[in-house]
Amino acid sequence: MNPSDRLPSVGALSPELNGWGFFLCTYKDVRQGRSGDLFITLSLQDKTGWVKGRILNDVARLRDEFDHGDFVKVEGRTDLFNGRIQLVVDRIRRINPDQDKAHGFREEDCVLCAVRPVEDMWSELQELIQHVRDPHVRELLQRMTTQHAAKLRVWPAALTVHHAYRGGFLEHVLSVARSALMLGAAYGANQDLLTAGALLHDIGKLEELEYDRSTSYSREGNLVGHVTLGTIMVRTATASIPDFPDILRTQIEHLIVSHHGHKEFGAPVEPMTIEAMILSAADDLDAKINQVRQALADETEGEFTAYHSRLGRVLWRG
Amino acid sequence: MNPSDRLPSVGALSPELNGWGFFLCTYKDVRQGRSGDLFITLSLQDKTGWVKGRILNDVARLRDEFDHGDFVKVEGRTDLFNGRIQLVVDRIRRINPDQDKAHGFREEDCVLCAVRPVEDMWSELQELIQHVRDPHVRELLQRMTTQHAAKLRVWPAALTVHHAYRGGFLEHVLSVARSALMLGAAYGANQDLLTAGALLHDIGKLEELEYDRSTSYSREGNLVGHVTLGTIMVRTATASIPDFPDILRTQIEHLIVSHHGHKEFGAPVEPMTIEAMILSAADDLDAKINQVRQALADETEGEFTAYHSRLGRVLWRG
Amino acid sequence: MNPSDRLPSVGALSPELNGWGFFLCTYKDVRQGRSGDLFITLSLQDKTGWVKGRILNDVARLRDEFDHGDFVKVEGRTDLFNGRIQLVVDRIRRINPDQDKAHGFREEDCVLCAVRPVEDMWSELQELIQHVRDPHVRELLQRMTTQHAAKLRVWPAALTVHHAYRGGFLEHVLSVARSALMLGAAYGANQDLLTAGALLHDIGKLEELEYDRSTSYSREGNLVGHVTLGTIMVRTATASIPDFPDILRTQIEHLIVSHHGHKEFGAPVEPMTIEAMILSAADDLDAKINQVRQALADETEGEFTAYHSRLGRVLWRG
Amino acid sequence: MNPSDRLPSVGALSPELNGWGFFLCTYKDVRQGRSGDLFITLSLQDKTGWVKGRILNDVARLRDEFDHGDFVKVEGRTDLFNGRIQLVVDRIRRINPDQDKAHGFREEDCVLCAVRPVEDMWSELQELIQHVRDPHVRELLQRMTTQHAAKLRVWPAALTVHHAYRGGFLEHVLSVARSALMLGAAYGANQDLLTAGALLHDIGKLEELEYDRSTSYSREGNLVGHVTLGTIMVRTATASIPDFPDILRTQIEHLIVSHHGHKEFGAPVEPMTIEAMILSAADDLDAKINQVRQALADETEGEFTAYHSRLGRVLWRG
Amino acid sequence: MNPSDRLPSVGALSPELNGWGFFLCTYKDVRQGRSGDLFITLSLQDKTGWVKGRILNDVARLRDEFDHGDFVKVEGRTDLFNGRIQLVVDRIRRINPDQDKAHGFREEDCVLCAVRPVEDMWSELQELIQHVRDPHVRELLQRMTTQHAAKLRVWPAALTVHHAYRGGFLEHVLSVARSALMLGAAYGANQDLLTAGALLHDIGKLEELEYDRSTSYSREGNLVGHVTLGTIMVRTATASIPDFPDILRTQIEHLIVSHHGHKEFGAPVEPMTIEAMILSAADDLDAKINQVRQALADETEGEFTAYHSRLGRVLWRG
Amino acid sequence: MNPSDRLPSVGALSPELNGWGFFLCTYKDVRQGRSGDLFITLSLQDKTGWVKGRILNDVARLRDEFDHGDFVKVEGRTDLFNGRIQLVVDRIRRINPDQDKAHGFREEDCVLCAVRPVEDMWSELQELIQHVRDPHVRELLQRMTTQHAAKLRVWPAALTVHHAYRGGFLEHVLSVARSALMLGAAYGANQDLLTAGALLHDIGKLEELEYDRSTSYSREGNLVGHVTLGTIMVRTATASIPDFPDILRTQIEHLIVSHHGHKEFGAPVEPMTIEAMILSAADDLDAKINQVRQALADETEGEFTAYHSRLGRVLWRG
Repeated sequence: MNPSDRLPSVGALSPELNGWGFFLCTYKDVRQGRSGDLFITLSLQDKTGWVKGRILNDVARLRDEFDHGDFVKVEGRTDLFNGRIQLVVDRIRRINPDQDKAHGFREEDCVLCAVRPVEDMWSELQELIQHVRDPHVRELLQRMTTQHAAKLRVWPAALTVHHAYRGGFLEHVLSVARSALMLGAAYGANQDLLTAGALLHDIGKLEELEYDRSTSYSREGNLVGHVTLGTIMVRTATASIPDFPDILRTQIEHLIVSHHGHKEFGAPVEPMTIEAMILSAADDLDAKINQVRQALADETEGEFTAYHSRLGRVLWRG
Repeated sequence: MNPSDRLPSVGALSPELNGWGFFLCTYKDVRQGRSGDLFITLSLQDKTGWVKGRILNDVARLRDEFDHGDFVKVEGRTDLFNGRIQLVVDRIRRINPDQDKAHGFREEDCVLCAVRPVEDMWSELQELIQHVRDPHVRELLQRMTTQHAAKLRVWPAALTVHHAYRGGFLEHVLSVARSALMLGAAYGANQDLLTAGALLHDIGKLEELEYDRSTSYSREGNLVGHVTLGTIMVRTATASIPDFPDILRTQIEHLIVSHHGHKEFGAPVEPMTIEAMILSAADDLDAKINQVRQALADETEGEFTAYHSRLGRVLWRG
Repeated sequence: MNPSDRLPSVGALSPELNGWGFFLCTYKDVRQGRSGDLFITLSLQDKTGWVKGRILNDVARLRDEFDHGDFVKVEGRTDLFNGRIQLVVDRIRRINPDQDKAHGFREEDCVLCAVRPVEDMWSELQELIQHVRDPHVRELLQRMTTQHAAKLRVWPAALTVHHAYRGGFLEHVLSVARSALMLGAAYGANQDLLTAGALLHDIGKLEELEYDRSTSYSREGNLVGHVTLGTIMVRTATASIPDFPDILRTQIEHLIVSHHGHKEFGAPVEPMTIEAMILSAADDLDAKINQVRQALADETEGEFTAYHSRLGRVLWRG
Repeated sequence: MNPSDRLPSVGALSPELNGWGFFLCTYKDVRQGRSGDLFITLSLQDKTGWVKGRILNDVARLRDEFDHGDFVKVEGRTDLFNGRIQLVVDRIRRINPDQDKAHGFREEDCVLCAVRPVEDMWSELQELIQHVRDPHVRELLQRMTTQHAAKLRVWPAALTVHHAYRGGFLEHVLSVARSALMLGAAYGANQDLLTAGALLHDIGKLEELEYDRSTSYSREGNLVGHVTLGTIMVRTATASIPDFPDILRTQIEHLIVSHHGHKEFGAPVEPMTIEAMILSAADDLDAKINQVRQALADETEGEFTAYHSRLGRVLWRG
Repeated sequence: MNPSDRLPSVGALSPELNGWGFFLCTYKDVRQGRSGDLFITLSLQDKTGWVKGRILNDVARLRDEFDHGDFVKVEGRTDLFNGRIQLVVDRIRRINPDQDKAHGFREEDCVLCAVRPVEDMWSELQELIQHVRDPHVRELLQRMTTQHAAKLRVWPAALTVHHAYRGGFLEHVLSVARSALMLGAAYGANQDLLTAGALLHDIGKLEELEYDRSTSYSREGNLVGHVTLGTIMVRTATASIPDFPDILRTQIEHLIVSHHGHKEFGAPVEPMTIEAMILSAADDLDAKINQVRQALADETEGEFTAYHSRLGRVLWRG
Repeated sequence: MNPSDRLPSVGALSPELNGWGFFLCTYKDVRQGRSGDLFITLSLQDKTGWVKGRILNDVARLRDEFDHGDFVKVEGRTDLFNGRIQLVVDRIRRINPDQDKAHGFREEDCVLCAVRPVEDMWSELQELIQHVRDPHVRELLQRMTTQHAAKLRVWPAALTVHHAYRGGFLEHVLSVARSALMLGAAYGANQDLLTAGALLHDIGKLEELEYDRSTSYSREGNLVGHVTLGTIMVRTATASIPDFPDILRTQIEHLIVSHHGHKEFGAPVEPMTIEAMILSAADDLDAKINQVRQALADETEGEFTAYHSRLGRVLWRG
């Protein structure tokens, strides 16, 4: 491959490629090597994944050419480092939108995101709300999704653990809703409550996390936590809907406060209804399966993954 | 109500009824009261539930009229004791089949059992097996269900915790299968494996428990446990099927050994595949929901149940 | 002592007394003894404590003379049962206010309550609020204590564990405030925040518990829990105060959500500030010391108490 | 800044300074880089903190110029490494006391120590003892503090966790005493016992730790532990005081053996008295707050600290 | 059997026997039945075991005929109560030594004790000490066993859990010594240390427990605990032996403080040497096996015992 | 020492040696240094231990001269790195058997193995089996050891934790047998069962691990686990022995399924018999002591080891 060729997308990189590409730089650290020389460690992202980069030459000049949070054009070569691909960067600079769009740069191609298009997910969300039969619950869901539409379309579901990418929030919430409604049908549970619980259980994360290409905790997120923030958001929204029944509000709040399933996982109250048990099981399973897929995607070789410290076991590729 | 009237079934008893009925006696204990008088505590069961009984008069004679495990004809009156119905027994004797059948006695009416008819459940089981596409898995399920058909039709799912009644095993297994297959479809998991895992995960209980109207642990059940016994049963069955692939056997055995989900719940190995995670979640949820329903059925009053010591919380009637 | 004498208050009862008294009946259960006879178990309370009662004679008539929740006039004799005083009741009837007031009946004498007069405690509360220097925090505390003044004056701090008596809420909250402010002074913490945290940390209990002489959980109390309910109450109150600073609101909410100290004790978020650590330590210590005092008061003999199952140890009288 | 300038104290270092200073070297490790060249990693301390150092040039000669435990004169420049200041050392040599004192070297300036002067702390200690009313307890405290005066004036409170600096022991013990006495006054506890418990609870650390500028565990410290060692020291001291009451000795020993609060934290016995509960709460709180302050001091930027693995959470700067 | 016959010893009782016997009464409680009548519950012990007793008639007179802690002569009949033998007592009185000795009463026959004669155990103890090669360790063991000889010959090993009978301490200590020395030989451990550790690990129980026929905790036992008390006893004893090496004392103290194996079981320090690991394993195993034997002896029927709540499982008779 | 000298065995290496040796290479990783140069990290093993190696020069050529799993001839010099010996390799190549045998190369000298010769261990194993009195148990042990003789002679006992070297399985199993039989004799346990349990408790590891000089988990090992695999192996073997009593098979299977002692350590069933308790204690102790010895051997200096993260403490050299 020629250095003037465009590199494939991150998910398709292999060792010993030469070329250039457009990325979002999500991490940049200038360090001094043991020999005294400076070098730069960075993370580069496109919509299919992220790759570690390293700048070893011409550091003094290149360090001022870009920053953490910039879209960048990069030239370099891939090699293997501890069994993972890395990109040794020869040239790097900030995007020049006018010029680079002509060569195919698009912001949305450079941000790690859910596989499924956001419009598809949004339609499914609307459809779920249409199927709610209780008018108060439906009204609540319509208001909250309309009010937070902008965030809902882009938010990740978590900082690092699972669905940690653009659109991950919606992807997770819809997946939980599908599972919960199927299980609810099997056990004769209240489907309206399950829809509300699935769509709102993590709603506090819209305030817990700050997301602008990359993700961090907000002050309120750290100090109050998404479980309580979400309950407050629901309380506020129901207060603005005329005659929203108290018992219904309490049921929905119970689904939110109990969705972590156990006190030691941060649920101040544990599930006391069949709906709360279903929601908590669906949420836990969806987060775990997303972690399994992530782990299998991160390591492309071997029948078993390395030890997964969060899940406390190795995983099998099957 | 007149003492010569037939009592309603156990699930429909109310206080202050007088009458007679046919039951299975599942517990009998002769005690001496503080005053020195003897009295008898007993449990009486029909297919809809069980009720505590008490014999206070004529004990010396009645104590020899029946034993634990007998079908009995009982005459007495209901009252409330600590908020639960009990039956104060005036007369009790063993069933005389010839005579009592004429008055409507049928063994199957006196054994606590699943709501759904066993033939329905058996048909669903067969249908699930027919839908398995892998011929080895299908063959395995056909052999094992045929071989254990007699037990499968009557077994309870557990000694006391959940589905502890005739047909409870099949009821639980089918419910887990339905949930697991729905979740499996949503997550693109291997449906054949999930069917096998759902139908076989508790198969060791056919050897762990001894059941002949009432239930107890077998020696092997206590000392080896149903998780390991079930794995051995699968190993033996696969060994008798020509060319059963090793990898398939290992996958099914993994589903069995890991189905309790966590080491501290008795899983020697934790789920390492998406299928094992789904099965374990479906099994846990089904057992919990059955306990909730049981608890709500046992206490007919109050918005919340008493503290449920196994689940560690009170439950809400909704 | 003559049956026509008035019994001393509960805290001063000794065995083998005969007499009459005014009480609140907080528990009543009609049971059938082994001999078939009915008897009644009850709890009787005055402002100094509670005593178990038992009605063995004339049950059929007396059972309709009073109910759980009634103020009653009782005649009987004390004896020892398992090392504790009990009252064997010969006569019991509902209070007839007009007639009984003449003989000294006063409702407030029959309700178990904090030792300290409520007006004293209320003054201390007001004084604490006066000392708050930040005008927003002071305003918040004034509004919330004014709004909930009626409940604040009578509420217990918990259902059974600690300060489970009339005025116990205020007693506990003031005690926590005193400790927290002393510790806060020692560690240079923000005293305004500590005052707010101490006074508001359990405020959700005003909605979690229902209290009208005796205590129970409300529906919201069970399903949402006082930690979250309290945070919502603060959020609502701050929203009605013009320009209440966001950061201040978050700090106070953090004190509430984290006050149980650890996730396994039901804190969805753990203390992240010196103020939150001080508040959580002061709250825990006050609850423990109240339990020790209760246990030592309940058993009047012996150098060590019996094993205290909640604290997991025996306690020493010193 | 000129290389001939004196560097500010460690707590005041910023990047890109050039200069010289006096320090205690508490760690020194000679390593071989990947290129085969040697380099040295070291820790340098003065009374305000510690800083990591690195020697990259002239290693073969400089390695013999000093050792771990030496007071040294250092010349170099500061830079940032992973967000923390480090000192790149150009010249280093052992202190020459006669010559260097002339330029301002004082041993006590080079040892990390408590902010408060030791004489102040010693006076407070004496005053606390004067306030003890029980003559036996006062005698015990006088003897033990006199006997161990030399160590008490310099000892750290722990190896690494909290108050890990010269004078930290006294600082911690006095802080616990202040808190415990305030809480004791509020709860009417025995103040003499609390003074004794606060001053003696960690006394075994005088034997557990070895401290001579830097800290390590003694053999007895590892194998017997400070809880038991401290109890033995008290037993020995009380044995030498005529007529020291047994019950008093037992009470003080109980405060020591139970001060970790829970078995899993190494308390062979859990607090059974109000005094023991107060002491354990005061000790735990003081250690936690010291860790918070340390963590906030170590990271000078950011609203929240990095994840604190011992406390299991991030901390907020406020 | 005739009421004038002597009953067999407790271990050999069967239902429906009539007769008399000599016992130690270890528990006596006078209660009022629901009918208002008094009855007495008591425990009766001889050297082979204990049996529950009940006095239903003539209570007013018999209650003054004996007390807890008395040797008594009893007349009555055995029956089954909840599957265990009990003795319904018709007559009971304190022993009249002169008269009753003539009929075979001997105190030592009425106290539950180890199967093996104390003199045998004492000889084995002496022999173990003779085999110690290190003169300081041997001297220590000789002094301590001589000093505490009286208690060592009679003490139980625990209040209720294991070896809870006269001579149980010695029985346990010798059993641990035998196991530890065998294991020590296999692993090349220091046998002198193991002998000392085995003989002294529980020595603090001589002060922790008070034993005079029946057992209770002493004040020091509750407040300081046998682990620390034992270490103090060793410290005191070694201090009186000239030139006892410090390192040896530390090693023996380590064996004592760490013998519970884990912090959560009350070991302030965990085993850090092969000797400490062996001792802790031998101690734990001996206590467990004694509990198994006790449980199997308490229930004479059934292949499996009832659920053993301390061990958390059922046990198999084999 | 001269580069033409043969290096001592690994266990006897010291810093600053020059020379050559024969080894097994068990790990090889080619990396790029910060300067861009390649270097190689490797592990070299002989029968006495393993040493880390590093190739810094001539990497491009040497990287193709050998691979992970090869026996190699190495030339280089030792130095210290982080307190451990490493070998800086100048020359390395695969073994040329014909030529190198002449200079003393033997495969068995290059594989880390148990200290004791395998033939000795095999004889002890046979002798243990000869002492079994029950003919069925003896037959079972003979069959299983004969069938798996090849693996039994070479297998390690674990991947990394304990006895992780050639012959480690047999070493561990014999050591457990010796301890269990001694303890069994002391407690009157069934020695035949203990022999069977000791020899077979880890038999599933022959299928769990794959071992060909170096060790890894097999697919079945990960997914089914050695506890269940071992039980299946016993079930299969007993099925082929005529008239093998069911109860005996269940007892042996119980020893295998329960040998980890507690559910949280992966035992699906906990020990219910004295034999199972003895076996589990002997197994745990042997694994722990082997870890202690390993830790002491790995660090040759210092009275205490570094913190041992698996055991959760430091260890004392004694």
